Amino acid sequence: MSLAQQLFAPRAVALVGASGDESKNTSRPQRYLRKHGYAGKIFPINATRPVVLDLPAFKSMVEVKEKIDHAFIMVEDVEAAIEDCGRKGVPVASIFTDGFADVGADGSARQQRLVVRAKELGVRLLGPNSMGMINFSGRCTLSVNAILEMATPAPGGASLVSQSGTMLGTVLSRGAARGFGFSKLVSVGNECDIGVGELVELLAADPETRSLLLFLETIRDADALARGVRAAHAAGKPVVAYKLGRSKLGERLARSHTGALAGEDAALDAYFRDCGILRVDMLETLIEIGPLLAGRRPPDLDRAARVSVITTTGGGAASVVDRLGSAGIETASPDGVSPITDLTMGRKSAGYGAVLGELLGFQGCDAVLAVVGSSGQFHPRQVVEPIIASNKAVAGAKPLAVFITPQAEQSLALLAGAGIAAFRTPEACADALRAFFSWKSPRTGPQETPPAWPQDIPQRGKLDEVQALKLFATCGVPVVPHAIARGPVYAHEISYPVALKILNAEIAHKSDVGGVVLGISSRRDFESRAKSLAKQGEPLLVQRMETGLAEAIVGYRDDPVVGPLVMVGAGGILAELYNDAVLRPAPVSEAEALGMIGRVKGFAALRGYRRLPPGDLRALARAVAAMSRLALLAGRPVREAEANPVIVKADGVVAVDALVVMKEE
Amino acid sequence: MSLAQQLFAPRAVALVGASGDESKNTSRPQRYLRKHGYAGKIFPINATRPVVLDLPAFKSMVEVKEKIDHAFIMVEDVEAAIEDCGRKGVPVASIFTDGFADVGADGSARQQRLVVRAKELGVRLLGPNSMGMINFSGRCTLSVNAILEMATPAPGGASLVSQSGTMLGTVLSRGAARGFGFSKLVSVGNECDIGVGELVELLAADPETRSLLLFLETIRDADALARGVRAAHAAGKPVVAYKLGRSKLGERLARSHTGALAGEDAALDAYFRDCGILRVDMLETLIEIGPLLAGRRPPDLDRAARVSVITTTGGGAASVVDRLGSAGIETASPDGVSPITDLTMGRKSAGYGAVLGELLGFQGCDAVLAVVGSSGQFHPRQVVEPIIASNKAVAGAKPLAVFITPQAEQSLALLAGAGIAAFRTPEACADALRAFFSWKSPRTGPQETPPAWPQDIPQRGKLDEVQALKLFATCGVPVVPHAIARGPVYAHEISYPVALKILNAEIAHKSDVGGVVLGISSRRDFESRAKSLAKQGEPLLVQRMETGLAEAIVGYRDDPVVGPLVMVGAGGILAELYNDAVLRPAPVSEAEALGMIGRVKGFAALRGYRRLPPGDLRALARAVAAMSRLALLAGRPVREAEANPVIVKADGVVAVDALVVMKEE
Repeated sequence: MSLAQQLFAPRAVALVGASGDESKNTSRPQRYLRKHGYAGKIFPINATRPVVLDLPAFKSMVEVKEKIDHAFIMVEDVEAAIEDCGRKGVPVASIFTDGFADVGADGSARQQRLVVRAKELGVRLLGPNSMGMINFSGRCTLSVNAILEMATPAPGGASLVSQSGTMLGTVLSRGAARGFGFSKLVSVGNECDIGVGELVELLAADPETRSLLLFLETIRDADALARGVRAAHAAGKPVVAYKLGRSKLGERLARSHTGALAGEDAALDAYFRDCGILRVDMLETLIEIGPLLAGRRPPDLDRAARVSVITTTGGGAASVVDRLGSAGIETASPDGVSPITDLTMGRKSAGYGAVLGELLGFQGCDAVLAVVGSSGQFHPRQVVEPIIASNKAVAGAKPLAVFITPQAEQSLALLAGAGIAAFRTPEACADALRAFFSWKSPRTGPQETPPAWPQDIPQRGKLDEVQALKLFATCGVPVVPHAIARGPVYAHEISYPVALKILNAEIAHKSDVGGVVLGISSRRDFESRAKSLAKQGEPLLVQRMETGLAEAIVGYRDDPVVGPLVMVGAGGILAELYNDAVLRPAPVSEAEALGMIGRVKGFAALRGYRRLPPGDLRALARAVAAMSRLALLAGRPVREAEANPVIVKADGVVAVDALVVMKEE
Repeated sequence: MSLAQQLFAPRAVALVGASGDESKNTSRPQRYLRKHGYAGKIFPINATRPVVLDLPAFKSMVEVKEKIDHAFIMVEDVEAAIEDCGRKGVPVASIFTDGFADVGADGSARQQRLVVRAKELGVRLLGPNSMGMINFSGRCTLSVNAILEMATPAPGGASLVSQSGTMLGTVLSRGAARGFGFSKLVSVGNECDIGVGELVELLAADPETRSLLLFLETIRDADALARGVRAAHAAGKPVVAYKLGRSKLGERLARSHTGALAGEDAALDAYFRDCGILRVDMLETLIEIGPLLAGRRPPDLDRAARVSVITTTGGGAASVVDRLGSAGIETASPDGVSPITDLTMGRKSAGYGAVLGELLGFQGCDAVLAVVGSSGQFHPRQVVEPIIASNKAVAGAKPLAVFITPQAEQSLALLAGAGIAAFRTPEACADALRAFFSWKSPRTGPQETPPAWPQDIPQRGKLDEVQALKLFATCGVPVVPHAIARGPVYAHEISYPVALKILNAEIAHKSDVGGVVLGISSRRDFESRAKSLAKQGEPLLVQRMETGLAEAIVGYRDDPVVGPLVMVGAGGILAELYNDAVLRPAPVSEAEALGMIGRVKGFAALRGYRRLPPGDLRALARAVAAMSRLALLAGRPVREAEANPVIVKADGVVAVDALVVMKEE
């Protein structure tokens, strides 16, 4: 029996801590399994009662004669239950009990011990602090989630992995009310063993799952998730994520109740895109987007997306189109003139179905948005039938999103039944189209030989700026001609004018302590400056003064949440003041770096804005790609690196400042 | 009989062009009036049929013996119908017929003629292209909107004015499904006479209206709307607007189907705020926000708002709080430590109602957000009763917003029934709180003596830079010491170094044509530069060279949509590149200008960021306030003005460049 079967479709389950008192959560799994048609064996485990609800109970799993595939643990003494799993040979345990990494350092230590012991015993763990797993396709609802008081919904092709147990119920109940069916839903809790990434990989291989939805508060294993999404992509299954923590406040909150780092949102955005995950901005989009993606591959667009719009209400269409415009999406119409096709203007006599059919066949658009006004409420069939027929006529070849402006439950249900994406709000409709058009195939980073770590530089501790410049140069970043000048003479061979800096690995921001002198134009001036700078006669760093058209910042960071990232931004204080920097998982190719540079607003001048002289942005792209090769170094010893500024010239670029922070200081 | 009565509660209506064919739109008003219980008299006007549905029809209004208060016109020949109104003494006509300003220049001309004639005849007009008016409080539904096929909803205290007829039906049907009652709903169409502003003023005085909702695609009369909102504010009635056209694409679309300028979104935002209008970002918020505002005045906060949060689901709370964080709202809790009060963590034993009661009484917060997880679906009373009880205990004194995470129609309806703001999506919930906290009382601009227009400057045609500088100085903007130098000697008394510019009102961008020389340090240098610049011996402008800490741009514009605006932004290309400029309706006081300056990111350096020397931002504020006094000039002859750059020094500011464009060139 595979892990997937043990996890999702066990033939026999033990409910450890099952209660017969219906007012208690711990009575729920047994009731729900019955209610939703579980056909396997159920063994309630209860230390004091011989019968739980209508079933004989056992004092411990060890007493059960038959094989148990999956234990659901609801008792305080999780450790003892896991020992029993080991003794009895139960291969998977889901742990509802909380009080582990969710409650701070002591809990984390307890969780770590549990993981080590379970591994020794050969028991795989879901949770702790998990609400369990629901499998509607296979009729196994091993969960305490009160949402299972609902009538058994028809199963469907969407599977959900959620870091919030309650929000699993939210997505399920809202989806069911709209006629969207689910196959499997898993609450991962603290992810001490089986995590989001492994579940995505299992579901990618699950024949009943056609699309994957993720409700995320954090990322605990970015590599595993990326692997899972690649498997899903290979199987033609889209992966959609709703991720909390966009704002600093949201990030703090997510951290406070998951006990994990939430990660910087811009880094996560870059990570999701590179993984091939569609990220939606609104909760309802996670539920409604399904039919828009079914059977589709990422559009991988490298230009603005174009949507053709048909409507019976100008205001209703505008409520969606306005937001598409904010997302950089354009409209296109067959006549090449009107922004949209408004049936209340001009083409009044044409039927909705005929015009929609025309748009669905129009080669100039990437998707069609169909908006319907007030008739949606009272004539659902009349509204929906031409849409279904037109979509069928093109065999669903063109992505189609429908927004019905009035209250229109029936029309929405009919469209859902026909597998057509229909949206309750203009905002979710626009969000879904935006997410769809941003969807990329999982990226394969450039295949390159890793740079060799320079022999004479230590792989731990603090690097001084000369060492940092050397490391950059090793990766291929053009660095300023420089030399170490030592007292008492401070001889060097750098041509004037030069800059002079103190060389001290302990001081990261030299200019803040008056440790930098720029624009020294003569040997005489140099000598006096050198002497006053190096008060104790330390060695100094001499660099050629470089001038160019603009300054850039190029950075690298091995992010604790999503792994290595490379960054490029506008120089001076612009990157910080206007958040004008672009992040991407490292390493990147030169072409990818050029794409990043294209999104930095402050480089407008370098792109020839207002007839200013253009800068060598290809050379900057090569420098960014070179910096990103820090991610290829064996053991990835670098935590953070920054060249700030990199001088951008009409011909070439040069890093004039280098900072490297190692993981092991 | 007042206009309000004629418009909203006529005792007799004529339906001009009424049809007995139920498949036609023109049959609807008569059916709907009956269906929804209109108790007045109905006179169908039909040129060919003696009976329409169950009523005797008339060939023209003139044939009707009794008084008619309101005509609803559905015929092509609107002009003839209005003549009949005049002849018959019908005081108000609503025009459903389209083909006026909604179809371009010819239609606009037709509309203009109609307005002139109606005024002569003493007939007030709603529309053309209006879907009519619905009054549920007074049981008069004079409209073709198919949404009236619905069962008559219970009336409520919200009234809607909509520039989209279809979206009126959308708001009504969605509101009704959620248990929100409406008093009056008006579709304004092209607003040729009775417009949004006048309607707001009428509804401000309407005893059955307690709050006003606006669905807007454009603003046709900014002053009238501002007046209406002031009246509503005085009557304690909040005004909430959903306005399309946030993106360029949305703006274009709104323009294309209203035939009116949509206006720049940032200008509209500033206008709405100063008017005292709450602007919501999402369609559903317009419907759901009502109870949050009922009986409240604008909070007029000048600090970050603080919300206390209670939840039974961390993920569910985070889905709202994350967005509050993006809007600059903070959370606060009585313990001063936890960002939110999560009943699944720590305080498990405390009852929801007790904790909610504590938060509602907590002085450290401005509002409470209550989030409820999965029990919301199956135990609506259990969920809702403690919320209603706690709210009642504090007599609704603290703003309270509720978000129920699962599908929970019943709980939402129970809360709506108790007058508590409950939201279906986390996004609309956050949007409502954001809009509420941004809500300001209508602003009264500074009361100042208008500056006098300088005698020697013409009030039309092009101004040269010396004239522009003089106008600025008249308003109180500090301008650079300058003089006109004339050939052949080019004598002047400005001390060196100086800048030299050609003085030509025809050339707006002098540096683009090589018409500016900076940093001339001596008389000798000056003479040769002057001679080469003034090839035909024209006069030249000599200015003292000014240096400072940074550059700003200060502008003024008499916007065709919202009227006079003043602008301040970061200098150089920052204002344009990063959209780093702040707009506000002019005139502004020095204190208000200082508030604007505080929102310009590029001035971070001047505020002492990174220990850079601070600039004289008070002096800049005085200059902004001075520039804004252009709005006070009699007749407002200036279309646009710009001082770019204004040099900001450690002590004082000075405008070194001046451009003024008059309305009449």
